[in-house]
Amino acid sequence: MAEDTVPVFDTLAVIGPGLIGSSVLRRAQAEGNLARKIIAVDKSPDVCARVAELGIADEVTTDAAAAAAQADCVMLCVPVGAMGAVAAQVVPAMKPGAVLTDVGSTKVSVIEAISPSLRADVPYVPTHPMAGTEFSGPDAGLADLFENRWCLITPLDCTTAEALEKVRTLWERCGARLREMTPAHHDRVCAIVSHLPHLLAFTICGTADDLASETRSEVLDFAASGFRDFTRIAASDPIMWRDIFLSNREALLEMLGRFMEDAQAMARAIRWEDSDYIVDRIERGRAIRKSLIENKQA
Amino acid sequence: MAEDTVPVFDTLAVIGPGLIGSSVLRRAQAEGNLARKIIAVDKSPDVCARVAELGIADEVTTDAAAAAAQADCVMLCVPVGAMGAVAAQVVPAMKPGAVLTDVGSTKVSVIEAISPSLRADVPYVPTHPMAGTEFSGPDAGLADLFENRWCLITPLDCTTAEALEKVRTLWERCGARLREMTPAHHDRVCAIVSHLPHLLAFTICGTADDLASETRSEVLDFAASGFRDFTRIAASDPIMWRDIFLSNREALLEMLGRFMEDAQAMARAIRWEDSDYIVDRIERGRAIRKSLIENKQA
Repeated sequence: MAEDTVPVFDTLAVIGPGLIGSSVLRRAQAEGNLARKIIAVDKSPDVCARVAELGIADEVTTDAAAAAAQADCVMLCVPVGAMGAVAAQVVPAMKPGAVLTDVGSTKVSVIEAISPSLRADVPYVPTHPMAGTEFSGPDAGLADLFENRWCLITPLDCTTAEALEKVRTLWERCGARLREMTPAHHDRVCAIVSHLPHLLAFTICGTADDLASETRSEVLDFAASGFRDFTRIAASDPIMWRDIFLSNREALLEMLGRFMEDAQAMARAIRWEDSDYIVDRIERGRAIRKSLIENKQA
Repeated sequence: MAEDTVPVFDTLAVIGPGLIGSSVLRRAQAEGNLARKIIAVDKSPDVCARVAELGIADEVTTDAAAAAAQADCVMLCVPVGAMGAVAAQVVPAMKPGAVLTDVGSTKVSVIEAISPSLRADVPYVPTHPMAGTEFSGPDAGLADLFENRWCLITPLDCTTAEALEKVRTLWERCGARLREMTPAHHDRVCAIVSHLPHLLAFTICGTADDLASETRSEVLDFAASGFRDFTRIAASDPIMWRDIFLSNREALLEMLGRFMEDAQAMARAIRWEDSDYIVDRIERGRAIRKSLIENKQA
C-alpha cells in the first residue's frame, strides 16, 4: 500500500482546465499521488487567472510549450475540435519518454488529429473519462467527478505498456473504473449512449422554441418532467457539443439514422393504432431501465 | 379562513386509485377538507384489497355504479383509453347535480369519449393535473404529488360555474396551480412538453435494444447521464402511454413531424459541417433551460 503514496508522474501538465481538466487538478491536489507538481495551461489569461485564484495548480501559464517541456505527462483536456492544433503545439516541446494523453469524448477523429504530431519517443494513451455535468469551465470541476464512473481507454500501437499502466493508475486514483476497447468501437458506443441523446435533446428544445409564441411560453410554464429532463441534457456547452458531433460524425449519423427509422415506425404505429407495436417498444425501454438499475447505473 | 375546513364535497368517489387517484386519496385523507367521505373504486379486487390495506379510503369497492350513486363528485382516474367505457358505467348512476371530473392526460379525445354519456343534470369538469413519477399503482401515490404542479382545466359549455369552482378548490387544496385553456390547445401544449419527449425516450431505448448484442451490453455498462435520463422517462407505464399516444394522435404526430424535420436538418448540418447551424440549435436549448430555471420549473 506504500506504493499508493508515490505520485504516478513527477510533473503533470493539464492543458485546458475546464470541467474535466479542473476536476483532474482538484483530484491531484486532494490525493497528492497523481503528480508531485501540477501545471495548468490555458490560452485564455482570464481562465489562467481564475485557476490561480482557485489555487488548484502549482503553476498556471498560457505557454503550453513551456509547460509541456517540464512535464512527464501532458494531458489534453481541450474541446475535441482543438486537439489537433494543441497537440501540434505541445508534442514537439515534450521530453523524450514523457506520456501524452487526451480525454476527448470521441476517439477516432481525435486520434487522427493528433497522429501527425506524434513522436516515436512520446507514447500516446487516448482516454475518455465518461463523467460530466451540464456546467463547464474551471469553476465547474469536482474532485470526485470520476468516482465510480467509467474511463474508457483505447490503446494504440504506439501506446507502450508502461505508459498505459501509468495512465490507468492515474485514473484509478481518480476513482474511475477502467475499460479498454478499440477507438472505432468506442465511438459507436458513445454515439448511442451519449451523443445521440444530446442531439435529440438539443433538437426538441429547438422544435419547442420554434412554436408559435403563445405555445412556447406555455412550454416554459408547463414543462412536465419529460421536457425538463431534456433541457437539463441540452444545457451543456455548445462548442464542446458541436465539436463532438462533427468529430464523431459517422457513428452519430448511423445511430441517428437507426433512430429516425424507429421513430417513423412509431409514428406509423400511432397513426394506424397498432397497439401491440407501441406497447412492445415501450416495454423495451422499461427493460433497459431495469437492467440499468440492476447494473447500478440508474 | 374557517371555510377552508369545510370539505369541498360530501362524498368523493375516485375511480382508478393508481398513481394520480391514490395521490388524491392520500391528500384527501391528510387534509380532511376535500371530502367528508372518500370512496375508492377499482375493477380489480387485488387493487381494492391493496387500497384497503393502505387505509387511504373510507370505503373500497369494485362496484363503480354503486359508488357513483353515493357520490357528490366522481373523479375518473383511469387510463385515457378506458375513460369512455367507465363514464358509460358510472354517469347513469350519478345523483342529479353531482359533479363529474376526469384527470386524463389528453383532453380532446377523452372529452369525445365521455360526451355520449353526459347528462344535462351532471356538470362535467375536464382536468389534467400535470404531475407524476415513473411509478404506477396505488402504492405509488404521494399526498404532496400535486404541490406546486400545474393542474390544467379545460371547461366546456356543460361545465357550470359552480362545478368549476368546486373542482378548482379541490385542486387548490391539493397544492396545485391552476390554468384554464381549451381542450385543443391543451393537447398541443402537452404533445410538445410531455408526450413527444416520452415518445423519443421510448424510441431511443428501443433503438439501443436493437443494436448488436455486444454494443447493447455496453450501452448498459456505459449509460452516461444522457442516456440514463432517457431511460428514467421511458420507465413509465406502457398501457398508460400507449393510450396517451393514441388518444392525442393528431397533436402528437404534428409535433413529431416538426421534430423529425428539425432532426433531419441537424443531421444534414453535421454531415456538411455547418457549425453555425449546429451551435444555433444548441444555443436554443440552453436558452429554454435558462427560462425554465428563471420560471423555477427546472
